[in-house]
Amino acid sequence: MDYVYGPGRNHLFVPGPVNIPEPVIRAMNRNNEDYRSPAVPALTKTLLEDVKQIFKTTTGTPFLIPTTGTGAWESALTNTLSPGDRIVSFLIGQFSLLWIDQQQRLGFNVDVVESEWGQGANLDILASKLAADTAHTIKAVCIVHNETATGVTNNLAKVRRILDDYRHPALFLVDGVSSICALDFRMDEWGVDVALTGSQKALSLPTGMGIVCAGPRALEATKTAKSVRVFFDWNDYLKFYKLGTFWPYTPSIQLLYGLRTALDLIFEEGLDNVIARHARLGKATRLAVEAWGLKNCTQKEEWFSDTVTAVVVPPYIDSSEIVRRGWKRYNLSLGLGLNKVAGKVFRIGHLGNLNELQLLGCLAGVEMILKDVGYPVKLGSGVAAACAYLQNNTPLIPSRI
Amino acid sequence: MDYVYGPGRNHLFVPGPVNIPEPVIRAMNRNNEDYRSPAVPALTKTLLEDVKQIFKTTTGTPFLIPTTGTGAWESALTNTLSPGDRIVSFLIGQFSLLWIDQQQRLGFNVDVVESEWGQGANLDILASKLAADTAHTIKAVCIVHNETATGVTNNLAKVRRILDDYRHPALFLVDGVSSICALDFRMDEWGVDVALTGSQKALSLPTGMGIVCAGPRALEATKTAKSVRVFFDWNDYLKFYKLGTFWPYTPSIQLLYGLRTALDLIFEEGLDNVIARHARLGKATRLAVEAWGLKNCTQKEEWFSDTVTAVVVPPYIDSSEIVRRGWKRYNLSLGLGLNKVAGKVFRIGHLGNLNELQLLGCLAGVEMILKDVGYPVKLGSGVAAACAYLQNNTPLIPSRI
Amino acid sequence: MDYVYGPGRNHLFVPGPVNIPEPVIRAMNRNNEDYRSPAVPALTKTLLEDVKQIFKTTTGTPFLIPTTGTGAWESALTNTLSPGDRIVSFLIGQFSLLWIDQQQRLGFNVDVVESEWGQGANLDILASKLAADTAHTIKAVCIVHNETATGVTNNLAKVRRILDDYRHPALFLVDGVSSICALDFRMDEWGVDVALTGSQKALSLPTGMGIVCAGPRALEATKTAKSVRVFFDWNDYLKFYKLGTFWPYTPSIQLLYGLRTALDLIFEEGLDNVIARHARLGKATRLAVEAWGLKNCTQKEEWFSDTVTAVVVPPYIDSSEIVRRGWKRYNLSLGLGLNKVAGKVFRIGHLGNLNELQLLGCLAGVEMILKDVGYPVKLGSGVAAACAYLQNNTPLIPSRI
Amino acid sequence: MDYVYGPGRNHLFVPGPVNIPEPVIRAMNRNNEDYRSPAVPALTKTLLEDVKQIFKTTTGTPFLIPTTGTGAWESALTNTLSPGDRIVSFLIGQFSLLWIDQQQRLGFNVDVVESEWGQGANLDILASKLAADTAHTIKAVCIVHNETATGVTNNLAKVRRILDDYRHPALFLVDGVSSICALDFRMDEWGVDVALTGSQKALSLPTGMGIVCAGPRALEATKTAKSVRVFFDWNDYLKFYKLGTFWPYTPSIQLLYGLRTALDLIFEEGLDNVIARHARLGKATRLAVEAWGLKNCTQKEEWFSDTVTAVVVPPYIDSSEIVRRGWKRYNLSLGLGLNKVAGKVFRIGHLGNLNELQLLGCLAGVEMILKDVGYPVKLGSGVAAACAYLQNNTPLIPSRI
Repeated sequence: MDYVYGPGRNHLFVPGPVNIPEPVIRAMNRNNEDYRSPAVPALTKTLLEDVKQIFKTTTGTPFLIPTTGTGAWESALTNTLSPGDRIVSFLIGQFSLLWIDQQQRLGFNVDVVESEWGQGANLDILASKLAADTAHTIKAVCIVHNETATGVTNNLAKVRRILDDYRHPALFLVDGVSSICALDFRMDEWGVDVALTGSQKALSLPTGMGIVCAGPRALEATKTAKSVRVFFDWNDYLKFYKLGTFWPYTPSIQLLYGLRTALDLIFEEGLDNVIARHARLGKATRLAVEAWGLKNCTQKEEWFSDTVTAVVVPPYIDSSEIVRRGWKRYNLSLGLGLNKVAGKVFRIGHLGNLNELQLLGCLAGVEMILKDVGYPVKLGSGVAAACAYLQNNTPLIPSRI
Repeated sequence: MDYVYGPGRNHLFVPGPVNIPEPVIRAMNRNNEDYRSPAVPALTKTLLEDVKQIFKTTTGTPFLIPTTGTGAWESALTNTLSPGDRIVSFLIGQFSLLWIDQQQRLGFNVDVVESEWGQGANLDILASKLAADTAHTIKAVCIVHNETATGVTNNLAKVRRILDDYRHPALFLVDGVSSICALDFRMDEWGVDVALTGSQKALSLPTGMGIVCAGPRALEATKTAKSVRVFFDWNDYLKFYKLGTFWPYTPSIQLLYGLRTALDLIFEEGLDNVIARHARLGKATRLAVEAWGLKNCTQKEEWFSDTVTAVVVPPYIDSSEIVRRGWKRYNLSLGLGLNKVAGKVFRIGHLGNLNELQLLGCLAGVEMILKDVGYPVKLGSGVAAACAYLQNNTPLIPSRI
Repeated sequence: MDYVYGPGRNHLFVPGPVNIPEPVIRAMNRNNEDYRSPAVPALTKTLLEDVKQIFKTTTGTPFLIPTTGTGAWESALTNTLSPGDRIVSFLIGQFSLLWIDQQQRLGFNVDVVESEWGQGANLDILASKLAADTAHTIKAVCIVHNETATGVTNNLAKVRRILDDYRHPALFLVDGVSSICALDFRMDEWGVDVALTGSQKALSLPTGMGIVCAGPRALEATKTAKSVRVFFDWNDYLKFYKLGTFWPYTPSIQLLYGLRTALDLIFEEGLDNVIARHARLGKATRLAVEAWGLKNCTQKEEWFSDTVTAVVVPPYIDSSEIVRRGWKRYNLSLGLGLNKVAGKVFRIGHLGNLNELQLLGCLAGVEMILKDVGYPVKLGSGVAAACAYLQNNTPLIPSRI
Repeated sequence: MDYVYGPGRNHLFVPGPVNIPEPVIRAMNRNNEDYRSPAVPALTKTLLEDVKQIFKTTTGTPFLIPTTGTGAWESALTNTLSPGDRIVSFLIGQFSLLWIDQQQRLGFNVDVVESEWGQGANLDILASKLAADTAHTIKAVCIVHNETATGVTNNLAKVRRILDDYRHPALFLVDGVSSICALDFRMDEWGVDVALTGSQKALSLPTGMGIVCAGPRALEATKTAKSVRVFFDWNDYLKFYKLGTFWPYTPSIQLLYGLRTALDLIFEEGLDNVIARHARLGKATRLAVEAWGLKNCTQKEEWFSDTVTAVVVPPYIDSSEIVRRGWKRYNLSLGLGLNKVAGKVFRIGHLGNLNELQLLGCLAGVEMILKDVGYPVKLGSGVAAACAYLQNNTPLIPSRI
């Protein structure tokens, strides 16, 4: 393999996979175990119980599937819907695009509601579609909570309100890949029927576990859903849940112990504090972008994402060059612009196990790169803006008071 | 979680997940990385090239899918077949049973060829089915190379011969989960169209990577295969192979580095030496079983498995009690009897990164457990038989000569 | 470096450094930390308190010195004695020899009481020396609790009794390197003034921490001890103990966290259970040696060591060849014969974090090696003898009952 | 122990122990090994050969002693000098003070040449002492290359020139604890007789290995040196060097493998590039301090240290509060002011495996802390100054070009 060692830490600011905290790396540093021994089911039981908290649900049933976010999507769709089912889905960026592509390939009849990249889901159209759908032909509304490509956070509470306004029974399926455990997310309160995330995002684990949580209506829907599924079939899990052995096939022992520690760290910090930390880092990032005189790809404040910021570069700069240079010169990993915004934006991921000074190091790096590529940034300006905010808003670390 | 610490090493002798060698644990002890940086594709490229060697193929195309063996099965089937396709499949134990269950649920028309558990696949019936199938309605022959539940290894060379005898174009799909990298397996020579294994088996990695290798005819078949697939779709991989970025979705960085090291260790030892080591340990185990006066679940020598031995206990003993006791008293993890042979057999997995003295410690433990549960074993008898063989047949470690 | 990878686990049966349990390896898998932050003193405080338990002392003061056993020896001597001081020391094997060499080079006037290698310390001579020493010119009695070269355990309770019989005020200094945390050791009850061990022995940590415990009389002795010392000076530690910062110079952060976990594991198992486990493994080993028809280097049962067994080989065999072969063929690490017994004995270390099946694997390996080198062992005989004992005497693992 | 977890990375900017790079943490993540097997001597041999490069010596003999810097000091002194020997030593800060304290306690007759803290060694006085010493009563000149407490680097080339000017045969003993592997150091060219460092400094390992290199004159001096020494006696090492087994007592297996990787990383980067990186980070730090309007404790540019910067705070601020706050609020570990400068300076360590963005994160943190404690810093000012320099002077990472 190419040897690409660089001195010091890699500054990992892609919006996933994110930095793994040392205690989690330690917890995963282990040999395999027999997953049929009493230890693994006992561990799994605590995970299934505790993971519900990050979804803010008491009624949901979680599944820890050895897969990625893409597989988690497939699990959400195939367990609840049948080929030909009509669904409404919002295209606002690369990840919503990919999910829609999956929905179509799985045979659903997708009403694609498209917005300009940088805008949130057009919920007015949702409202009018639901209003018109008195026959309830729409079986599901699928929405990406946080579009990672553009840094846009959709308003899920409003989606629920619209569904309620029209008393529409469509299932409410949410991709929370870059939101859950980082942004405010309330499965039960918002009546989300299926929510899902991936281990390598805000949970700060390696890739490999798709975490899907199904509410009672979603479980009910499995009975009639005709989509073909085996590996992703929730019923195979439920059968083993009843037996108390939990696993229809071999789980990753390491990820189970890793998840245990990841949850422990989140609970130690407090989920609300974790979310507040993301809000703080997101705000600081946006203040830096503003100070640099650059535009946020996200067009309105209501959609600002606290997990990823897509920064628009001037037309004379290729944003890919910024990413390339960060890696080659400063050991900094930024997110590329994808698809429609390729070359036009670069992304700063600020989710997962991250703190203020890590972010400030990144922002200082971005300033130098901007200068490197010919943008007339005032060095220190973004860091100053971020610091001014953070210095006033960062609480003491509770365990150290 | 229940605290289940026991002093000393856990003796892991389930047939998967198996012991991870220290260099692999070390290689995986790392933070996440940006999988879109130049480093990860460069690493991936070496993996895709080198992993072919464990399949003994030069014409196959490998896929490293973030899934388990069950997902790898699904990938093999859905990429090459269409719902309603007729396939021949052999039911000889729990894992072939599960694969057949999957085949049926995916909508294939399965000719199940059943054998008594403890016997190999009935290839005479295969021959007659192929002979009768002059219209070539049979689209695929699916076979588990090594049935992990009963310790039965099927004769794949013979399957190929039969297919050739009848010039039958059916695809030849092989589950090599508990064989590849441990037993003699020759994808190209035997004309296997799809072969697959899981990372947690003979490769001695954590669970989480399904390794599927598709031959040219299998890739050709994807063009007409109508099974619905997205997450498991090989074409999504092939698209990114062409781009040189390799990944349609986020891989596990840790498993990639782990696989790199696992392959390095296998090549350092020599794949043929690895296979010879498995043959040696398998033989030693069977000699011990014989010395104890117990029966091998596998009914004929031609089917003896060098990766797992299922030991039949006398009717007055519950084999689950043997497994339970091993764990509770000796920190030994043995395999349970599954389904039809539950309570009747226990299994000794002897695959993966394992050596002679580890196995002998296990065999000594089994002797004590047999005594514990009332079987009149002569203590030391199995170890003596195994030692007599191993002392004559274990080569010096090449790096230490 | 030479590449010496061998498949499977290395079977580490030298009497130190010993196997590190996985939880300890995990605990040490970490970055450095500022040792002046509040965290490290808080951690250290628990260690200093808890480590006393393995000495069975409430009155002693422990020092965790970044050194090896040799340094711990030097610390014990130089803090309590003055050049020219008369001391009594017992030469019974290589490690007592090395300690005596150090005592002499440090300028003490050593009465060397020599025994044949394989015998314990001659306590009759001690008695007569003390009887004769009415002027109390003997300032200290130095004794190795367990001579690692010959597998001889001295009777410390008897040493105390003799000292008491003659009301002799000599300090009682004990090398517990291969005994503490494995053999019965009672600092307070036996009136030991200084006891010491090394991290890489029964505590099952990496090398690098000399653990020295000084009783009140030893601390008193520091006031008059004129031996030159700086790095090893206890007073430098005591100064920082008073300040609550604990460290006169930088400790190994990793070893501190490692020790924390090592102690946690020992307390979880129960120190008395740990000692019982060593007794069990020691006994099993001796039964195997007997079954092989070989002699224990230790001449009388009263001196049998439960942490290491030195096995005498017939004159026509070079014991070094046994060790060499173990490593080259079976990935087994046995202890060489040292000095006077070089070529004549090999040693099986059975201390630290070890269980029954690990030992049985080792014993099976030794049997094969004996055969390899031409000794007419009956294969399985030693394992059978050990199993017969262990099967009757191994308790269930408490956490798994 | 107190639980002191904080989200994100700890920003470790004490001048030791420093950040360990991930590849080194990985290399050390291992079980113990028999240090008498062929593997460990083979590994040691490469280390002893390669470690000379970081001293820039071909004639020196290195010793890898299981101890800290304090023990390395003791080793340097006791192997080359006799009690009563006259030595010249420079007191310029806390670490030179501690070394002098050791020298005096070891019985040497120390001419202490004191400078104000913040100044370098007074070499004029050295010159006059050597000039006056025609009888060559001065046996050694002892100097700390880089005083970690004040961030002062002494001019070793000049010391050599003075010694040469007076053709004085005194041994030249150098504490390179916070310099070697980070600052320009040339053992052979500068005629240094003993040089030493500790593993936890620029080598970026855990604490626990004192690395001492003795030139030919120093080895010659051991023959007449009458200082009492056993644990630290080089001759015990040399005896085993001749035997090819290398170790008079048990080394830390983990530190050996760690050192192997640490050296590999340094050679991969290039020792001169490593030194240039330290120069770059040191300069950037000083520019930030200047921009903040604060004073460097180091009084003249010729003494500026590229491994640690001691920053003087205004009299109305307690520098300890800055350190405390860094840890409690920003997970930042800064160095306290020690002894005479306690409360008056805080220290930024910028040595070891560190890169630009890590440092910039730290500097941003310091700015916020300064504001926190009431110093009227212009936020962003220090970062801007550092960035302006770094943006112009940071090379591409060679492996990524």
